[in-house]
Amino acid sequence: MEVTEIRAGELDAEEFIRKQVRNISKIVGKGSAINALSGGVDSSVVTLLGNKALGKRLTTYFIDSGLMRQGEPQAVVSLFQALGVPVILIDAQKEFFNALKAITDPEKKREAITQTFYRKVFGRLVLKSKAGFLLQGTNLTDIEETVAGIKRQHNVFEQLGINPQKAFGYRIIEPIIQLRKDGVRKIAKALGLPRHICHRIPFPGPALAARVIGEVTPRRIHIVRKATAITEEELKKSGAFQYMAILHRDRVTGVRSGKREYGLQVEIRCWDSIDARAATPTKLSHETLMGLAEKITMEIPEVVSVTYNITTKPPSTMEAI
Amino acid sequence: MEVTEIRAGELDAEEFIRKQVRNISKIVGKGSAINALSGGVDSSVVTLLGNKALGKRLTTYFIDSGLMRQGEPQAVVSLFQALGVPVILIDAQKEFFNALKAITDPEKKREAITQTFYRKVFGRLVLKSKAGFLLQGTNLTDIEETVAGIKRQHNVFEQLGINPQKAFGYRIIEPIIQLRKDGVRKIAKALGLPRHICHRIPFPGPALAARVIGEVTPRRIHIVRKATAITEEELKKSGAFQYMAILHRDRVTGVRSGKREYGLQVEIRCWDSIDARAATPTKLSHETLMGLAEKITMEIPEVVSVTYNITTKPPSTMEAI
Repeated sequence: MEVTEIRAGELDAEEFIRKQVRNISKIVGKGSAINALSGGVDSSVVTLLGNKALGKRLTTYFIDSGLMRQGEPQAVVSLFQALGVPVILIDAQKEFFNALKAITDPEKKREAITQTFYRKVFGRLVLKSKAGFLLQGTNLTDIEETVAGIKRQHNVFEQLGINPQKAFGYRIIEPIIQLRKDGVRKIAKALGLPRHICHRIPFPGPALAARVIGEVTPRRIHIVRKATAITEEELKKSGAFQYMAILHRDRVTGVRSGKREYGLQVEIRCWDSIDARAATPTKLSHETLMGLAEKITMEIPEVVSVTYNITTKPPSTMEAI
Repeated sequence: MEVTEIRAGELDAEEFIRKQVRNISKIVGKGSAINALSGGVDSSVVTLLGNKALGKRLTTYFIDSGLMRQGEPQAVVSLFQALGVPVILIDAQKEFFNALKAITDPEKKREAITQTFYRKVFGRLVLKSKAGFLLQGTNLTDIEETVAGIKRQHNVFEQLGINPQKAFGYRIIEPIIQLRKDGVRKIAKALGLPRHICHRIPFPGPALAARVIGEVTPRRIHIVRKATAITEEELKKSGAFQYMAILHRDRVTGVRSGKREYGLQVEIRCWDSIDARAATPTKLSHETLMGLAEKITMEIPEVVSVTYNITTKPPSTMEAI
């Protein structure tokens, strides 16, 4: 399947929305669909397009994997309830942490999350709902990077030559596959999504598990969740495309109460980018960086060291794993 | 043994040199001494003090552990030859790499280096030379941090309650134990050491092994050596107290020739400090940092990511391991 890009500058938002709503209606027919909402701009747009097309025949789930950011599951569900879109919150924390136990290889971690998400948790929901269609927020950058082997996305089965109907029992609909992030934001705005969702910084599918190098445990997620909350609070005024805190596995020497201690290191990344294809570290002030490191090491005693990534993409990628 | 600090501001360099030369002469008597020169300001000062006191009765070795910086062994030996101080270069690279094989724990790495240095390589030289005395460049900060458990120095046996005469067969003389780095630099200048030695940035005893997290192999030392050469070249005009490149064990995602690749990450640290007791990351320009990352990732293809440390000491330490 060849995908034709629609550039943000040439995008007529109203027409795009009408076309996609019509398209979803046509494909689903008298059937029903389900989708998983993560609270990111991609899945939020798809949820609203699906809701416009299908109304109550779309069931939207928010799966709490235990890997989400601070307060995120409740905040996302509340927001969509307020927009008139019911969202069902599924607590699957134990299932995810069990699946992630003792895994350190990044590929295997993503695979464990994909399997737990699609085959187990979401798979059960699909079977129960008897929905024949799955709406997904795959965008053009995801596709290109998956094909190029740069990124391993869980939501691009067709591109990888996997038949989702055979493998998972449903057909996938990807309404925003022709857009990049800037285009998706334009649609989000036109759909009336609040500013903090339209301009929410990108957040990966495997959530905080993508921000932990090495084994993903409840304790390590707790630490990176705190570092993420501090980083997002301190950098929200930076105007950057994306910013994140990454917990390393390598331990480094630190001093706590005058004694040497092998502690944890957190890496901060903050990117300037238009569409995630290329990116440059944001020029943050020395004071901002120092303040961020001070706050993180003060509020998370296990962390004795904080770094700021200074590499462009390429040769770096946005995320660390 | 209580050590009384001599502050740099109150230090009379000429008097200090006379006193230490007299003291070394008195202790060694008609015997002979040996010392190991690393090329740092501490061991360089001690070599010249020893040379003034003992002349040919001091034998100075430069042990090439394979862990030194680019061109360092030859450069140090040539410099001291030019100053009229003969230095014997010992190639012990294989012995060190063999001792370090498969060790990842930082304590065990330092222990392996200490054992290889003192018990094996230097121990053999001491026995062969029949010298009864060893001159060492321990300074006051080393002592304090060893006692406090922050640092593990190989040259502070007495402080750790180890009798070097029993353990290694020689008595240790530490002429600069009352000084901190700023005091040592003042003495170096008064001794006529060239500016690039007096103001050489501090470099740890375990050399580049202290800059590699995880296993120390010839390949990993080769990579961190290249990163160190670039970092020192780019930051030499920064006026910073110390700067370094650290090779991490954690791998991160990068892009090389359009394909995803798990690559290496190098961390840069650049410290403003008076005496290494406390330190602040140097305020380097965004352009300097970006240029450094670009150069490292261009010249070392295995490295796809570079970070800059933004933590103060404490809670960080100067070195990572």
